[in-house]
Amino acid sequence: MSTRFDTITFLSDYGTADEFVGVVKSVIRSIAPAVSVIDLTHDIRPYDVRGGSLTLGRSAQYLCPGVVLAVVDPGVGSQRRAVAVEVGGGQSYLVGPDNGLLASAVAMSGGASAAVELTNPEFQLLAPGATFAGRDVFAPAAAHLCLGVPLDAFGPAIDPLSLLPGLMPIMREEDGGLLIAEVLWVDHYGNCQLNVDPDDVAHLGPRIQMRWGEDVRTAERADTYAGIAAGQIGLVLDSYGMLSVCMGQRPAAVELAMPLGTEVTLCAPTDEDAPAGTPVSLAARKEP
Amino acid sequence: MSTRFDTITFLSDYGTADEFVGVVKSVIRSIAPAVSVIDLTHDIRPYDVRGGSLTLGRSAQYLCPGVVLAVVDPGVGSQRRAVAVEVGGGQSYLVGPDNGLLASAVAMSGGASAAVELTNPEFQLLAPGATFAGRDVFAPAAAHLCLGVPLDAFGPAIDPLSLLPGLMPIMREEDGGLLIAEVLWVDHYGNCQLNVDPDDVAHLGPRIQMRWGEDVRTAERADTYAGIAAGQIGLVLDSYGMLSVCMGQRPAAVELAMPLGTEVTLCAPTDEDAPAGTPVSLAARKEP
Amino acid sequence: MSTRFDTITFLSDYGTADEFVGVVKSVIRSIAPAVSVIDLTHDIRPYDVRGGSLTLGRSAQYLCPGVVLAVVDPGVGSQRRAVAVEVGGGQSYLVGPDNGLLASAVAMSGGASAAVELTNPEFQLLAPGATFAGRDVFAPAAAHLCLGVPLDAFGPAIDPLSLLPGLMPIMREEDGGLLIAEVLWVDHYGNCQLNVDPDDVAHLGPRIQMRWGEDVRTAERADTYAGIAAGQIGLVLDSYGMLSVCMGQRPAAVELAMPLGTEVTLCAPTDEDAPAGTPVSLAARKEP
Repeated sequence: MSTRFDTITFLSDYGTADEFVGVVKSVIRSIAPAVSVIDLTHDIRPYDVRGGSLTLGRSAQYLCPGVVLAVVDPGVGSQRRAVAVEVGGGQSYLVGPDNGLLASAVAMSGGASAAVELTNPEFQLLAPGATFAGRDVFAPAAAHLCLGVPLDAFGPAIDPLSLLPGLMPIMREEDGGLLIAEVLWVDHYGNCQLNVDPDDVAHLGPRIQMRWGEDVRTAERADTYAGIAAGQIGLVLDSYGMLSVCMGQRPAAVELAMPLGTEVTLCAPTDEDAPAGTPVSLAARKEP
Repeated sequence: MSTRFDTITFLSDYGTADEFVGVVKSVIRSIAPAVSVIDLTHDIRPYDVRGGSLTLGRSAQYLCPGVVLAVVDPGVGSQRRAVAVEVGGGQSYLVGPDNGLLASAVAMSGGASAAVELTNPEFQLLAPGATFAGRDVFAPAAAHLCLGVPLDAFGPAIDPLSLLPGLMPIMREEDGGLLIAEVLWVDHYGNCQLNVDPDDVAHLGPRIQMRWGEDVRTAERADTYAGIAAGQIGLVLDSYGMLSVCMGQRPAAVELAMPLGTEVTLCAPTDEDAPAGTPVSLAARKEP
Repeated sequence: MSTRFDTITFLSDYGTADEFVGVVKSVIRSIAPAVSVIDLTHDIRPYDVRGGSLTLGRSAQYLCPGVVLAVVDPGVGSQRRAVAVEVGGGQSYLVGPDNGLLASAVAMSGGASAAVELTNPEFQLLAPGATFAGRDVFAPAAAHLCLGVPLDAFGPAIDPLSLLPGLMPIMREEDGGLLIAEVLWVDHYGNCQLNVDPDDVAHLGPRIQMRWGEDVRTAERADTYAGIAAGQIGLVLDSYGMLSVCMGQRPAAVELAMPLGTEVTLCAPTDEDAPAGTPVSLAARKEP
């Protein structure tokens, strides 16, 4: 069989305890047997469109050309549009709900060159209920795109500018040179990625004061997790080029009470900060 | 290589923290390298044969023709039979323990046209212990079935009628028109699927009273999750054609204390029910 | 495309909630599209090199020839070496950090016949930070090994004897014939694998006294989980040829308070032990 693409990258909030992911893959394989599916993750928190969008955005530059199938879809069956978006003049396609989920990856891929609403029932499964668009609408579209079905066969063209944008919080600067950042992502190891490019804090030097909630700590720039001394807080240039708050082999998000979404203020260390960094007094902290 | 099937769909209670699933796939690939394995789920609760059977049954109509490998096997190594079951006159095969796990999918596939007990050691791995039949008995059988080994090569034919049936709880009607249903499945989002076909409650109209435990609530029929008003309970036609108790983006099973297996009585709403549905007073409910 | 290997077996401590595993697979597929990846597991506890090594060692004999990609890498980006190890004179390769993770599988495969340090940037991805060697160093090496790139192209040869060994705790015998064992692994079902070969305890007969912490219990040898009577403790020859402490369909590790790493002393049962085994009084035990 001649296929246009042989890879679908699949992200969702389906979890893996139910059969949802497997059924979607089975539908894809029934339509496009030569296509392989790569699971990006299915553990996006239920309904967390922003978390899914950020995950796609981080991954975009590493994904195989082909189709990205993304489903975090609290409005399934309602008025939100189901869409397919072309990027790179046809190098890849993204399929999913038009709720901002795809925005970050589309932007990382250079923007949308075309888009359609998925309305053609010829490329959908008939289903008793309207709650599983991943199976009935998105998977068939992704599979048929791989087979070479042209984009305009799936439904009416829509203006790419009408696609719902993602909301990517940008670090901002306040009076006095304070930088207001946010924890964009807490990874599996408990590292806290900030929306901070290292160039933006280069002027602060190797030690940076962080304030969040009631806490004030000084962190040290570090190149690797292993380079963070015990009890110290590291600001590590992570694998995506952003700064992450890390504590060696301990989960910073838990140890520092710095969950997803925490606002963190960055500035130069004050005089009273110990020269070698402030030890974290963990004994006094009570974590659940 | 000429293979009869190129897809194995795999369900188990193995979890994914150990190497069980990967080892089974490696055994399959060593025998039948051209076969792809689709994971349906491996998070069936340990030993939950009924949960596995229902999951297979829900999925059956969407699965690729080929071999279904299913392992939830509390009796592994004991007198329970290891079987392969032919359905659709050879369109697909199901491989697993004869403990009811396969029953629902076999029924959804039109019933068994043949079955054998897996006894031929030629198609099994020698192993030090008898506890990992997925690796040693079922995976080799599934892989060799894909390769085209005829069913009767695996062991003696058994009467399909002798296969252990699954126990599918049927909604029943009591005096006074009360319908006694059960929560068959709580999905990843906390939606509670009932064993209720919408036709069976059509006469009750758009609002239905539900009683379970000490609770009485009125639910409204809804087409989508997004169509459920905040604080209301929706009865949504789910993607498998059954009614599910849903609460928009909140997990109904938790919010309503309606776990798997809960018996739910359905009837017409009584006069004192508010016309627009009874708001759920969540403040007074204490959830763990 | 002519590839040397078409299978990569992948183990890590990445978890599956982030995109790490998917991105690694995408990098592999971009380089070596004909290669399939089998996930062994990605739920090794973060930084648990020994747990990962034991998992690889248990699995080794069942894995397809090809490349094993293993990443549990607390020292990522530091002085620890990134290596590729040849086993079986080129039948398979193992790629990962030189921290003991690969040792058990290398030993099970007959030992290393060659090894190199992965230093050649031609087979690595440029990355902003040094924290994701799985994506930037190990995945590209694994993929290129599949494509047939010779081992010495990846970097300087290293003495296989210089590879960090794994630490495999061996059962030891103390005065009076006491055997001191350890719980090597608690599986998904709560079974506790001991580092005990059944031959080492054959002289003790079918009933064996176990002591751990404050507890003394008598266990009975059993061939299957189903052969363990309710409330009894079984010592089952597991699927890897070791003895496991099991309690039928209940999780022994929880019920007996016998977590990973517990030291368990084995000896012949004493006179006061009941002939049919000591019932476990669970009522008095409080588990979390």
